[in-house]
Amino acid sequence: MRDIHSYAAGEWLAPGAGARNIASAITGEVIAQAGNDALDAGAMLGFAREHGGPALRAMTFHDRARMLKALALHLMEHKQALYDLSYDTGATLLDHKIDVDGGIGTMLVFASKGRREMPDAHVYLDGAPEQLGREGQFMGRHICTPLQGVAVHINAFNFPVWGMLEKLAPTLLAGVPAIVKPATATCYVTEHCVRLMLDSGLLPKGALQLVSGGLGDMLDHLDCQDAVAFTGSADTALKLRSNPRLLQNSVRFTSEQDSLNASVLGPDATPGTPEFDLFVKEVQREMTAKAGQKCTAIRRIMVPQAQIDAVISALSDRLAKTTIGDPRAEDTRMGALVSNSQKRDVLEKVAMLSAEAERVFGDPENFTVQGADRDKGAFLPPMLFHCADPDKAERVHDTEAFGPVSTLMPYRDLAHASELLNRGQGSLVASIITNDGEVARELTMGSAAFHGRLYFNNRISMGEATGHGSPLPHMVHGGPGRAGGGEELGGIRGVMHYMQRTAIQGSPDILTAIGQQWVPGAEEITDRDHPFTRRFTELDLGETFHSPSREVTLEDIETFAHFTGDTFYAHMDDEAAAANPFFPGRVAHGYLLLSFAAGLFVQPDPGPVLANTGLDNLRFLEPVSAGDSMKVRLSVKHKTPRNEEYGEVRWHVTLTNQREEAVAEYELLTMNAV
Amino acid sequence: MRDIHSYAAGEWLAPGAGARNIASAITGEVIAQAGNDALDAGAMLGFAREHGGPALRAMTFHDRARMLKALALHLMEHKQALYDLSYDTGATLLDHKIDVDGGIGTMLVFASKGRREMPDAHVYLDGAPEQLGREGQFMGRHICTPLQGVAVHINAFNFPVWGMLEKLAPTLLAGVPAIVKPATATCYVTEHCVRLMLDSGLLPKGALQLVSGGLGDMLDHLDCQDAVAFTGSADTALKLRSNPRLLQNSVRFTSEQDSLNASVLGPDATPGTPEFDLFVKEVQREMTAKAGQKCTAIRRIMVPQAQIDAVISALSDRLAKTTIGDPRAEDTRMGALVSNSQKRDVLEKVAMLSAEAERVFGDPENFTVQGADRDKGAFLPPMLFHCADPDKAERVHDTEAFGPVSTLMPYRDLAHASELLNRGQGSLVASIITNDGEVARELTMGSAAFHGRLYFNNRISMGEATGHGSPLPHMVHGGPGRAGGGEELGGIRGVMHYMQRTAIQGSPDILTAIGQQWVPGAEEITDRDHPFTRRFTELDLGETFHSPSREVTLEDIETFAHFTGDTFYAHMDDEAAAANPFFPGRVAHGYLLLSFAAGLFVQPDPGPVLANTGLDNLRFLEPVSAGDSMKVRLSVKHKTPRNEEYGEVRWHVTLTNQREEAVAEYELLTMNAV
Repeated sequence: MRDIHSYAAGEWLAPGAGARNIASAITGEVIAQAGNDALDAGAMLGFAREHGGPALRAMTFHDRARMLKALALHLMEHKQALYDLSYDTGATLLDHKIDVDGGIGTMLVFASKGRREMPDAHVYLDGAPEQLGREGQFMGRHICTPLQGVAVHINAFNFPVWGMLEKLAPTLLAGVPAIVKPATATCYVTEHCVRLMLDSGLLPKGALQLVSGGLGDMLDHLDCQDAVAFTGSADTALKLRSNPRLLQNSVRFTSEQDSLNASVLGPDATPGTPEFDLFVKEVQREMTAKAGQKCTAIRRIMVPQAQIDAVISALSDRLAKTTIGDPRAEDTRMGALVSNSQKRDVLEKVAMLSAEAERVFGDPENFTVQGADRDKGAFLPPMLFHCADPDKAERVHDTEAFGPVSTLMPYRDLAHASELLNRGQGSLVASIITNDGEVARELTMGSAAFHGRLYFNNRISMGEATGHGSPLPHMVHGGPGRAGGGEELGGIRGVMHYMQRTAIQGSPDILTAIGQQWVPGAEEITDRDHPFTRRFTELDLGETFHSPSREVTLEDIETFAHFTGDTFYAHMDDEAAAANPFFPGRVAHGYLLLSFAAGLFVQPDPGPVLANTGLDNLRFLEPVSAGDSMKVRLSVKHKTPRNEEYGEVRWHVTLTNQREEAVAEYELLTMNAV
Repeated sequence: MRDIHSYAAGEWLAPGAGARNIASAITGEVIAQAGNDALDAGAMLGFAREHGGPALRAMTFHDRARMLKALALHLMEHKQALYDLSYDTGATLLDHKIDVDGGIGTMLVFASKGRREMPDAHVYLDGAPEQLGREGQFMGRHICTPLQGVAVHINAFNFPVWGMLEKLAPTLLAGVPAIVKPATATCYVTEHCVRLMLDSGLLPKGALQLVSGGLGDMLDHLDCQDAVAFTGSADTALKLRSNPRLLQNSVRFTSEQDSLNASVLGPDATPGTPEFDLFVKEVQREMTAKAGQKCTAIRRIMVPQAQIDAVISALSDRLAKTTIGDPRAEDTRMGALVSNSQKRDVLEKVAMLSAEAERVFGDPENFTVQGADRDKGAFLPPMLFHCADPDKAERVHDTEAFGPVSTLMPYRDLAHASELLNRGQGSLVASIITNDGEVARELTMGSAAFHGRLYFNNRISMGEATGHGSPLPHMVHGGPGRAGGGEELGGIRGVMHYMQRTAIQGSPDILTAIGQQWVPGAEEITDRDHPFTRRFTELDLGETFHSPSREVTLEDIETFAHFTGDTFYAHMDDEAAAANPFFPGRVAHGYLLLSFAAGLFVQPDPGPVLANTGLDNLRFLEPVSAGDSMKVRLSVKHKTPRNEEYGEVRWHVTLTNQREEAVAEYELLTMNAV
């Protein structure tokens, strides 16, 4: 029997006297024990606040993203050990891959997004500056900075690795230390994963701690800089969110709860279509993967009244092929539930569903288990119910059997399907299998507000689709009401859950100093060489080049028109142009102005500017007529290192005419040698 | 005495038997009564859900923005009546302007942002699509749709008009009906404002209801599609957020609580600087505006140890000039508190502060009131305290006297100032008066996570700055911990509080159908005339033009270089270009490609395309060498009506070479006749 330790305030603590036994899901035999009589929640929080927080906050977003990448690659090397431990949870190799590889993949996506979508700085800018006064001397913008407390993560038993990493990746990227409390039933897998991360030496002291066993009075020590993120049942979530200390101090509480997720077969997806087969395949997969112990699993299956019999038949055929048994065996498709107590809970819920729905596939008293003892392990067969009158029913919409159990119900039309979808009172995900954009639009308008995610699949997307049940790091995961009312993941959105958004108001110089992004109106540095002759590392924000001015002649316009083929009448015909609401008469091409601007600011010889890679937010503000002149102002707005050789410089560019009116404004991107 | 009515399920209801008397703040005499024995919360919610929600959701964001604008202009016409009513709340004309004009202005900003920053559609797109599979046949993006329930707004007494409108504007723009419950003490002003809005006929049935008096069991009827937004004291907030029904159903609860907001005098702002005078002026204004009854008022004043005496002296001089009296008198600078019970509450808190701080200005037993009876009205003088040892003190950091009361405390250095700022355990706003960007940056890094807003002011911004205490519709209003842990306003961010964000996954066609924005990979419509010959209203999403191809010759590159002056070596010198990490040798100018692209897709004759107004997200993806050829694909991505004559079309543009590789990609904006 293994002792599962906690990692608290820099020490590994063995389980105490009151430790709880953990049994193998396959054999029912005790394999480990976990518990923590001596845990000092205040000391753990103090350790994180004193060491982990300051160390993480001293790093930039890019530093932390690089750390995440290194951690993920380290875990990748050791994933076999995590697989080996995971079989005792009842899960198959395919299930482990969802858990372990899925967790590592999530970390890698955050590492990559951290580098691409966040600055190499300590402050994240949320949205563009807002001009709050007439002259632009008082501006506003929003920034996000890391919470100065601790993230407490309370995870579910079903994904001991992914469940930790999907919360840990955005937390660390934000710059916040974490205390992870896995569900005891599978905490031996999480503990090993935490050991791997701590032993890697990649994490600063205090960035990660682990509670194996109960959380004690941890929540009673939290304040406004801490955050709690929970995944699990609605009942436990309610207990946690009712904690008086959390309520009193407005402590952030994010909850991601198992919910009555549904899948809808579109009216167009009749038998014989690729969508019908796809639907049957997806439903079967969601019912049996992880033995149905997924918070996103399909609990309610909605099909057009006319297709009920066809779906029962096709789905039953497919479910019948699900080999149940020892997850270590190669041909096993479905392993065991996590524990015998979980199995008992599922059977209780099944009895409740039976009052409103008929069981049309699967008999918990009569099924075959290969390579394991059916009565000692926590095995159950997939069970399909049919509820003929879902309008009158209640339990099928609010009772979740957290196992391989789902209820089929007929719908009359799309409005009825929406109504049934929404009877779940909030879910993590609903899927709709349809090849008809109008069906997709109508169900979205009727039901999106009740669901955190809508997953559409059809013949076009089926080759690449990632599955109804898979939360992706790019997409928000969570849902309203019964699903907990929270959000996780969603790319950088998920990082924001561990940061405070603050509105900043002040002069352009103040905003520039805080945000490390030059704001128009802030000081221009003009006493240096042309900024295109200065290397990435030498450039300061606000370094500005003012070009000489150049006249735009009618001959220029004619030449450009014939050279490019752009003979639009506004450039060629004075009378026709004057009839256009935007022009006083013939005007220069916008692209002519851009091209002349480049001619005015370019430095012809080889130098630090390697390439112009792009351009953003170009707006033509005033027309330029023949005889007008133009000049350019070019200022360093922002710098982002890309690799050891070069970095990206974002320039704010303004073209003005001889009356000092802005005629065009844009942002230019160049790659500059470091 | 006026009867203050409720507006419930389409009827105006008079106060019931248990109605509460409301006294004038100036004379103490009863002027009105409010209460609602007969209120049926279930019926009100049903009325909003059945009529208001569907009617609002049938409108687009632009429809609702236009409605807000019309409502605001209607209120503007009738604002004198609101001023006239407001004097009895104790407020001066300047206070009314903050309340009434501020509320109308907030509505106008949301109306304008709704038109400019949201689509003329039913779904708001949050972020760009994410490619989730290798070939782009399975994509993800996020949408926001209106909650299908009701927003219950519970407002504070201090801003009976602004407090309603700052919540109502984003709620209606989102497409959600509201039930407004103002604080009873000033509900007679709110009631009149609601009457004005309902009588205007601009609102659909069920979009707005009013509860004068208590809310009854309203909260016990809410579910996952409803939202509660509260403004007021921490105590009341805690009671509301602990409601079991809200916790059980994960009902959204936003709280904006009075907090221990602070203002810091920067170390650079010594006596004699413009910043020192500005500081004294801002603090005095925040202490006395609305008699200090502002949730954002400055309760803690932090100044460098060396400046304590100078600040006490300057601030006392200024406070001494505050004429207190009947707010109807023109020379009155500060009116009365809202009620005698509020005055008693302030005096109790003042007694608590006195244990830790010395009163250095203002005596509640000895002050002059002009034009009113000092003992009958709820008058108090401004009171300034000095706490010499703020590290040891507790009450000055957690006790809020909601009146013209503030405590001065010394700080040693910026780290100490941050520490004191954060002792408030979360606030709505902290202000920092400094002309030093480094001071601003350091205090931001130390304290931003504890504050919803940081307001900086100095000699540059003072001419346009809007004041420490003014929440602006553009900026988020709210704060962590003691401030309630919520957010309101912040432009479109504030609208999202009444919408559900949903992750959408599916094929490009499905995403296009749902989001009404063409996604690359979705169907191209190519069997029509050139889309530049078709009017705004005729164009469908996905209408696509494929241009013929054109060779780019070395002569073209030479010609363009000499014409524009852009003789960058990568275009002119084969050997030097090849030494650059991005280029194989001499390449065409990016602007040459853009210009040729325009030549390939332009329609020279007058037609529906009026002007090219801008360009977004241009990225150069592959270099183009002499001898390569290029062609253009141009697809209608999105349409936004602008006025009755024209609308904006956003085109997705891809340039490809003879190997079908994308060489550049961007979005083009044109203005098209309707």
